[in-house]
Formats: sequence, structure tokens, C-alpha cells
Amino acid sequence: MVTSSVVNTYPLSSYTFGTKEPKMEKDTSVADRLARMKVNYMKEGMRTSVEAILLVQEHNHPHILLLQIGNTFCKLPGGRLKPGENEIEGLKRKLTSKLGANSPALVPNWQIGECVAIWWRPNFETIMYPYCPPHITKPKECKKLFLVHLSEREYFAVPKNLKLLAVPLFELYDNVQRYGPVISTIPQQLSRFQFNMITI
Amino acid sequence: MVTSSVVNTYPLSSYTFGTKEPKMEKDTSVADRLARMKVNYMKEGMRTSVEAILLVQEHNHPHILLLQIGNTFCKLPGGRLKPGENEIEGLKRKLTSKLGANSPALVPNWQIGECVAIWWRPNFETIMYPYCPPHITKPKECKKLFLVHLSEREYFAVPKNLKLLAVPLFELYDNVQRYGPVISTIPQQLSRFQFNMITI
Repeated sequence: MVTSSVVNTYPLSSYTFGTKEPKMEKDTSVADRLARMKVNYMKEGMRTSVEAILLVQEHNHPHILLLQIGNTFCKLPGGRLKPGENEIEGLKRKLTSKLGANSPALVPNWQIGECVAIWWRPNFETIMYPYCPPHITKPKECKKLFLVHLSEREYFAVPKNLKLLAVPLFELYDNVQRYGPVISTIPQQLSRFQFNMITI
Repeated sequence: MVTSSVVNTYPLSSYTFGTKEPKMEKDTSVADRLARMKVNYMKEGMRTSVEAILLVQEHNHPHILLLQIGNTFCKLPGGRLKPGENEIEGLKRKLTSKLGANSPALVPNWQIGECVAIWWRPNFETIMYPYCPPHITKPKECKKLFLVHLSEREYFAVPKNLKLLAVPLFELYDNVQRYGPVISTIPQQLSRFQFNMITI
């Protein structure tokens, strides 16, 4: 685990983006997703998911890499841990699955950094909170967001059914309508870091 | 500086609250405040302010201590640093001025912890951002929020013109109308901490 209050960010242009086979969503609707969550909860207990904040810079302003599905919905790369799986190892596995090349030599050496936020899902519903609400003794999901420190050069292989976007913090901020409560408050959670904008 | 991902929180009832002489606001209107900010900027450059997040617990849920002025406006205890003043020492000075007893032996031994957020004021206006916006080379204020670790027992002396409120995270969350953008996103900034709720 790498932790520092200074984060090096490199220009978007220093990264290379290719494509790979599509990664289809497991569910075709929110209702399906919540139903599958319920089935998994019965089998395995609380779901733990891990997501990555990958930072790049453009025009001296930090940008975050988001995966876009279709024309509107954006999400952070990451996913659900296997029962008992270590968070850091699980996030590396998910990042490689979502953004790593098929050739292992080209997969980034993911440097997982600080946990910047933890969100809780009290019920089998879409709403999540940045705390476990009072009187909820059996939350259904715990989602942890980690800063991931990218090296100067990386190759990302983006599944063909998805787009990878570099979205500036000023676009995310105060934009809950477009990005939802988790992603739209990433600027606040990153505000304590000093970004060292490196030009190459 | 104390840093840990586990934060001990003690019941509100374990703290004692007294009163002391009023601490009047320096300005009677937002316009006055921004005008004074401008005058100070000309003399001293960018304003740096420091504010404290003081945590207590009730019903196993974290609460934050806020100072209420009149019937509506709430603020975190803290204030402006003197030119060149150290952040940690400056925050201790401000906390003692706002909440410390007149008798030095009763003043808490303030344990300043993690910086959890940094907000920027680009212009002599009320709006602030959790990043320095692109193309702003001379921000007018930088405001830093620190977690302050309270001991099991403390005595707080509250200025007679103010009220000290313990506000639960669930009341702050998603309540920008009542608490403003800085205070209403404190729950997200604290979400990465694990609160160790101590009962006495």
C-alpha cells in the first residue's frame, strides 16, 4: 500500500489505450442487479466491492478515468471481491480484468494507494450512504474506493463495449444528477491531496 | 499530529459544557465580510483558514460539534491563521479562543489529527471549490479541515452568543441547503475512518 499526501499525475497523452473483447454487464436492469445481489447475500453474506480512482492530468487539472456503458452511465473500474479475498489483491484482479491487456507483460503494475471513501448499502436498493445508518445491523454491501497510483507510462486495454473517459474534477463536482452520489463527491475526497502535475 | 484510520469517539454525555463571554462576529453581513477579506488580501496575500471536526457519539452514530450563530447559520470552530503561522498551532489557538475555558488548566489538550479536506476560494465571493479551479493562479483563500481527537473527558466553554450543537452525520449528509457545501460533505470525507464508539 502506497500512501502519501502528494500524488504524481501524468498527462493523459502519456498513456496508451487499446481495445479488447467486450465485458458484458451481468445484469440488464437495476431490478435484475438487486435480485442477483439478494441471491448472493443469502449464499455469501455482505457484498464487499472495491473501486479504483485512476488519475491523469490535462491542462494542469486532475482528471479521473471512468468507464462509460452506453451513452450515459459511468462507473469506476473495480468490482466485487470473492468471499474472503484481500481488498488490495481483489482490486488488482478487477483492474486487470477491466483494463489490463491480455498479454500479462503489458498489464500495469497496479499500485493501490489510500482508501478515500467507504459507502454502505443498507438494503437491497440502489441508495447508499457514506456511513452505516443507525439501526442497520446487517448492511448488504460495503464499497471501498482506493486511489491507484499510475506510473508515467501504461497501456490500458478497454473492453470493446465500453468507453474509457478522462473526466475533470470540475465536471464531477456538484454534478450528482450525471454521476451519482459516489462519483460526484470524489473531488471533495481528493481535496486533501496535493497533485504534483508532471509534464513529459 | 495524530493519524489513524480508527477514531475513538466518546458519548456526548461525557463532556461538560459551560459558557463564557460572547465572541462577536467581525462582520455583520456577507458583503462586509468579503470587503474585509479583500483589504486583508491586499495586506497579507492569500488567507489560510483552519477548521476543526470535533467528534462525539450518541446512539452509536458519530456526531459533529457545530457552533450555531443566531437561529440558522452553523460553522465549524476555527478561523484565520496569522501570516506565517503554523497550521496546527494556529488551529489550537483558534479552538482555545472559541471553545476553551478562561482558566488554562481547563482548556483541552487539543490533539490535531488528519487533514480531511481542503477548499479554495478563487475570488472575493462566497463560492468555494474542493480544488483550485483551472486558470486560477491567485486564489483568495485556502481553508483546511482537520479531524481533532478528543479525550474521554473535556470541558468546553461556549461563548454566550453562540450555541454548540452535536449534529449527527445522517443530518449533515446530502443537506447542502441547511449546512452548505463544506459541512454537508463531511460525512463523505469521514467515511474512510472506522469509528470506535466507546461507552463510558
